[in-house]
Amino acid sequence: MPGHLITFEGPEGGGKSTQARLLADALRARGIEVLTTREPGGTPTGEIIRDLLQNDLSHEPLCDATEALLFCASRAQLCRNVLAPALERGAWIVLDRFTDSTLAYQGFGRGFDVATLRSLNDFATGPVRPSLTLLLDLPVEEGLARAVARSGKKDRIEQAPMDFHRRLRDGYLQLAREEPDRFAVVDASKPVPDVTAEIRRIVETRFFDG
Amino acid sequence: MPGHLITFEGPEGGGKSTQARLLADALRARGIEVLTTREPGGTPTGEIIRDLLQNDLSHEPLCDATEALLFCASRAQLCRNVLAPALERGAWIVLDRFTDSTLAYQGFGRGFDVATLRSLNDFATGPVRPSLTLLLDLPVEEGLARAVARSGKKDRIEQAPMDFHRRLRDGYLQLAREEPDRFAVVDASKPVPDVTAEIRRIVETRFFDG
Repeated sequence: MPGHLITFEGPEGGGKSTQARLLADALRARGIEVLTTREPGGTPTGEIIRDLLQNDLSHEPLCDATEALLFCASRAQLCRNVLAPALERGAWIVLDRFTDSTLAYQGFGRGFDVATLRSLNDFATGPVRPSLTLLLDLPVEEGLARAVARSGKKDRIEQAPMDFHRRLRDGYLQLAREEPDRFAVVDASKPVPDVTAEIRRIVETRFFDG
Repeated sequence: MPGHLITFEGPEGGGKSTQARLLADALRARGIEVLTTREPGGTPTGEIIRDLLQNDLSHEPLCDATEALLFCASRAQLCRNVLAPALERGAWIVLDRFTDSTLAYQGFGRGFDVATLRSLNDFATGPVRPSLTLLLDLPVEEGLARAVARSGKKDRIEQAPMDFHRRLRDGYLQLAREEPDRFAVVDASKPVPDVTAEIRRIVETRFFDG
């Protein structure tokens, strides 16, 4: 497919959504068609699934397996109806979280078999794959402090035990080691402008012979 | 787990829901605690997923992969919150459709890889497995004619091409050949009382030393 999918991944508080927005702006300034959307969500079906996952639409707790399958269901609808057509027409897509979040949170975090989750992801995405995944890495304590400062409250995921967050960070770093051609690890504990510049440099080198 | 899960499977028009109800009644008459529920559905989350799958809650068509993942998400919630606790306390469960419907419809019908769908099912069900699956088999034309006569209209699945329905029936028969200890194939083209008697005989032999 002629377009490119760039995903931002990493633990809480690394600045993924800010950096995703800045990168999308920078690409648009080059005249590229850039699509940004959200996961779960991004389609009418996906937004209902998002409500199920986040707003307790059903007034009962979701089992871990249900949660993982709902994330993938939203992803399947997004990939087939939005991402694949955009990539086919040559657009670029910048996403805050994608398939690696499922491997990190449900796999390394909650203990589901990572190979099984990969096959769930593959089933959901079909041929859609990231060209580049920017892993915004930072120490767990620092990321959580930033996330709490930003939101003013701890959400469900941030309230998980510290051990969960450590497994998450280590899991992300393991995924990056397994696919060095796709992943770039960025030190997100640096000031935001430095992180932005580093991401700009990586994207230049990767796509524009920078 | 001390309880038993009995599932009814098969193409359209074989009388699955009628026979499931009759079997549940017969087991209850023996003093057994019997749970009947529906798939998708059976939990608050599952009922919302059912609406997404059946009533076009989102006003957009669902992709085949989204559909398969939503069926499994509903199943995961049902298995963990309802079926597993019931089986643990020794209850019996009678279901009109379960995991084999995913293999038959999404696999043999729509062409997804059956092994991948099996791993999706396993992810959804955890340790919950049917003790006995009654495949109510009948010729495609006969089943469809009965289903249309019953409902007065053709629903989405019944409107699929005849070739789809043939693959479905053949797929079910293949699943039964692969797991002869779990499956019993029942000739559902016979009159309802004969089918009921045959099912009663199979259950007696399997569970009560007939």
